[in-house]
Amino acid sequence: VLRADHLVKNVLQARLAANLEARGLAADKDKEDEKTKKKKKVKTAAVQLPDETVKEYESILARLDNYSGPELGQLCKTHDIRNPDTGNQVGEPQQFNLMFASSIGPTGQHPGFLRPETAQGHFLNFSRLLEFNNGRVPFASAQIGKSFRNEISPRAGLLRVREFTMGEIEHYVDPESKGHVRFPDIRHIVLPLLDRSVQLSGSVQVTQMSIGEAVDRGMVANETLGYFLARIYLFLLKIGIDPRRLRFRQHMANEMAHYATDCWDAEIENSSGWIECVGCADRAAYDLSVHSARTGHPLVVRQALKEPIVTEREVPEFNKKVLGKTLGRDAGLVQRVVGEMSQEELVRLKGELSQGSTTIPADEKQIVLTPELLTIERRTFKQSIREFTPNVIEPSFGFGRILYSLLEHSFWCREQDVERGVLSLPPLVAPTKVLIVPLSAKEEFDPLIEEVSTKLRRGGIFSRVDDSNTSIGKRYARNDELGTPFGVTLDFASLQNRTMTLRERDTTDQLIGSIDDVIAVVTDLVQGALTWEDACTRLQVYDGVQAVE
Amino acid sequence: VLRADHLVKNVLQARLAANLEARGLAADKDKEDEKTKKKKKVKTAAVQLPDETVKEYESILARLDNYSGPELGQLCKTHDIRNPDTGNQVGEPQQFNLMFASSIGPTGQHPGFLRPETAQGHFLNFSRLLEFNNGRVPFASAQIGKSFRNEISPRAGLLRVREFTMGEIEHYVDPESKGHVRFPDIRHIVLPLLDRSVQLSGSVQVTQMSIGEAVDRGMVANETLGYFLARIYLFLLKIGIDPRRLRFRQHMANEMAHYATDCWDAEIENSSGWIECVGCADRAAYDLSVHSARTGHPLVVRQALKEPIVTEREVPEFNKKVLGKTLGRDAGLVQRVVGEMSQEELVRLKGELSQGSTTIPADEKQIVLTPELLTIERRTFKQSIREFTPNVIEPSFGFGRILYSLLEHSFWCREQDVERGVLSLPPLVAPTKVLIVPLSAKEEFDPLIEEVSTKLRRGGIFSRVDDSNTSIGKRYARNDELGTPFGVTLDFASLQNRTMTLRERDTTDQLIGSIDDVIAVVTDLVQGALTWEDACTRLQVYDGVQAVE
Repeated sequence: VLRADHLVKNVLQARLAANLEARGLAADKDKEDEKTKKKKKVKTAAVQLPDETVKEYESILARLDNYSGPELGQLCKTHDIRNPDTGNQVGEPQQFNLMFASSIGPTGQHPGFLRPETAQGHFLNFSRLLEFNNGRVPFASAQIGKSFRNEISPRAGLLRVREFTMGEIEHYVDPESKGHVRFPDIRHIVLPLLDRSVQLSGSVQVTQMSIGEAVDRGMVANETLGYFLARIYLFLLKIGIDPRRLRFRQHMANEMAHYATDCWDAEIENSSGWIECVGCADRAAYDLSVHSARTGHPLVVRQALKEPIVTEREVPEFNKKVLGKTLGRDAGLVQRVVGEMSQEELVRLKGELSQGSTTIPADEKQIVLTPELLTIERRTFKQSIREFTPNVIEPSFGFGRILYSLLEHSFWCREQDVERGVLSLPPLVAPTKVLIVPLSAKEEFDPLIEEVSTKLRRGGIFSRVDDSNTSIGKRYARNDELGTPFGVTLDFASLQNRTMTLRERDTTDQLIGSIDDVIAVVTDLVQGALTWEDACTRLQVYDGVQAVE
Repeated sequence: VLRADHLVKNVLQARLAANLEARGLAADKDKEDEKTKKKKKVKTAAVQLPDETVKEYESILARLDNYSGPELGQLCKTHDIRNPDTGNQVGEPQQFNLMFASSIGPTGQHPGFLRPETAQGHFLNFSRLLEFNNGRVPFASAQIGKSFRNEISPRAGLLRVREFTMGEIEHYVDPESKGHVRFPDIRHIVLPLLDRSVQLSGSVQVTQMSIGEAVDRGMVANETLGYFLARIYLFLLKIGIDPRRLRFRQHMANEMAHYATDCWDAEIENSSGWIECVGCADRAAYDLSVHSARTGHPLVVRQALKEPIVTEREVPEFNKKVLGKTLGRDAGLVQRVVGEMSQEELVRLKGELSQGSTTIPADEKQIVLTPELLTIERRTFKQSIREFTPNVIEPSFGFGRILYSLLEHSFWCREQDVERGVLSLPPLVAPTKVLIVPLSAKEEFDPLIEEVSTKLRRGGIFSRVDDSNTSIGKRYARNDELGTPFGVTLDFASLQNRTMTLRERDTTDQLIGSIDDVIAVVTDLVQGALTWEDACTRLQVYDGVQAVE
């Protein structure tokens, strides 16, 4: 089963690419292909297309979201779009809801759907959140949870699945001031940016630029968007993503949601290509406006103006009693006509009335007005409240994709033995921080194991004991593959001298010191307060020779 | 819509209770009723029942889980069981799946269900977890997530809902040794226990007993179960549950799952009565056995025995060539008959063979055996591996119920003003730890606000600024209701002297000190390293008078 809009898109894009290649215009084609493997899948032999066909394909692609099911079916027939895997013709498109449906309660009369994204929960709670923030922006809400999409064809491991964990921040800002108070803290951070203009030129060359400069140049729409791009970058590096396989790609104008002001994806390269893992968009006022329109409940900020806006206006005042007596049924007509007059017209009418009486046209009549019926006065108005719909900047995280990419980036094999895998997770994210390895399963080690694991537990460090019946080397190798960053070994010298060795996973370097010193060092290492290089200055290098009397 | 089995249960239980009352045997009835409000709902007038009816009701209740839908319908007719709210007769029971159904993929041919509990995921991963623990027990896995039950009638706020967050620990133990290595650490903890025998006597009187004593007496089945009861108790107290409204109730024999060894519920009293919030059961080998039987995949621990078990056995050895030649078609028959012999029979046969030849009966024949056909020898067997299915101790948490109860236990109103609510959440669970309150919205306070909030953020303390245009008193009152435990106030003295006041939510006491001292104190308070009483010795009491020159 194929998704009809994806099928049409992939096949036509492949034909256009093949056309460019046939015309010798696709020097960067291979680079383009890096972007997604999907494109490679429907790569077609280089065939030149007539100019009008190229135009037609481009027009179809531009309007792809607007075709109905039967129209997509017709497109497949007209342009002989076939299943790229089998070469077979495709059947008529079937309507298919990407949301999982269920029914609620015993009667089966209440349909329910699993949410296809988590974000809408924020907007439902907007009024409450705004109140909690004393009615003012900026403020933000954050959430993490499961989303469910009944994907037609889940694939690529954790990259496209039917149940996934996502999370997002909704940061609400005043549309007239999208600065961020903490932008100065991060404006020096240099990001790998792939902006719209570079992509338009057919290149995927990343520019290393500080986020401050990118915002100053207008490449990134505003400070708040830039702030989150930098924070996303710092987050991904902190958990261990390889910065050389990370880029921020700006959405093309036609790729971006119609309401969005600007949108960048943090793309991480893994074995499936460059994969969107975090989106960061300025969604303008779209979500709140749509919710508000549907519910009739205003989702706005009412801001007290520091300086009230003072305006003067001419205001007509009718002497309604006299008006009714004098004009009878035309009284209402006159009020409507005068009420609809512009300020200029009112000024003119005021001048005429000051001269005595005047006539105004109303419904093809000419009606005589006098100062007894109507006076026009200049009044002062003070507006002290400004009302606006906040804009929302939304960083949105696909945690499964990030985790999958992290595992790929972290895994490597020792040069001397490809069977010895290492998962170089930073201590921050490694599930087990310290492995405790007694030299043998002899019971005499039990009190020391208990002491070390209790001290680590009290220090908030998660450790595991591996006292299985295999060599220390094998136990370390197994836990290297599990990503455990540090190991401490209790041997006969530990029993005699209360010393312990400390091993680092990636280098396999070992240090030695008193049990308490090693615990203090490993605690600092796990908490990120110490690098391994610094640790080497606090403990002695262990040369593998242990003194036992 | 009513759930048929619940309806029958509630009505018959109410009639039995009314019968006891009518017979004057229900002195403790009111106390019993405290247990759940449900019972009160179907309370019926005190009517005495004939003895045989009492027996019949009791027999129905004992077998309630085994009735089919039509049988439950028949029970309602036979015993005139009506809707307790309306007094109307009920219709025929309809089959209803408590799991939410959906379908997976575009064809609609793959049914899917939302999980009604989280626990089964542990057992599916048992083999992997066991391997991760080097093939040995004890070990534990823990998980938290959403569960979904299509409740016929959700009610009582967060207590019975269709989507809820639950979590559990599955702690796997050797069925022959259910001790816990850290039991000595908690054996002195005194728990409010309501055991089976007290309930059988018709009382709900809680016994305060140390968990050590409860395990020693056999009231709680084993150390591991006891260990988790104590840890559940400490957890609930730590997050702010009122210990006077918490009890551990043991399941009655007929209430417990048939496979369970022992089961205790942590029940918390709230406005709906005593509500099961945490269950803690020794589920024996049930889950792993059932999964294993369904999949054919053994879920067992293979333990190397320290002392191999050595056994000796008589083993028959056939000279198959000669056997076939001599006995022809009876050769197989003889092998089967001898193979099924007991050790005693083999010893006797061995003795007879040592005398020369003998005959054995087989399929109504008598067959002659000689030492040429068959020898019997005593062999030594060594068993060095013990294989067993681990038992599982399962503490299982209903987080919505715990949270709801916590909110009820934490909320109170100030004596002087019932409009002034206070949510006395412990700092550990309060969403905001510190409120920063500048005396006025004047910009001159901005640098100090920034300094204090940055320092708190760097210390890992979540704070919020309330610089809204209301009095300090109102701002504190509002944040008391939100559960914020501490407030710091920046006033004109702060600008001049760099002092700050610190306010505690429950007592409304205020202290004063230098900005850095107050930050240090409030950090220790939030981290639980300091009580408010101790804080009062580190800072000066604030008398409400501030010196401004």
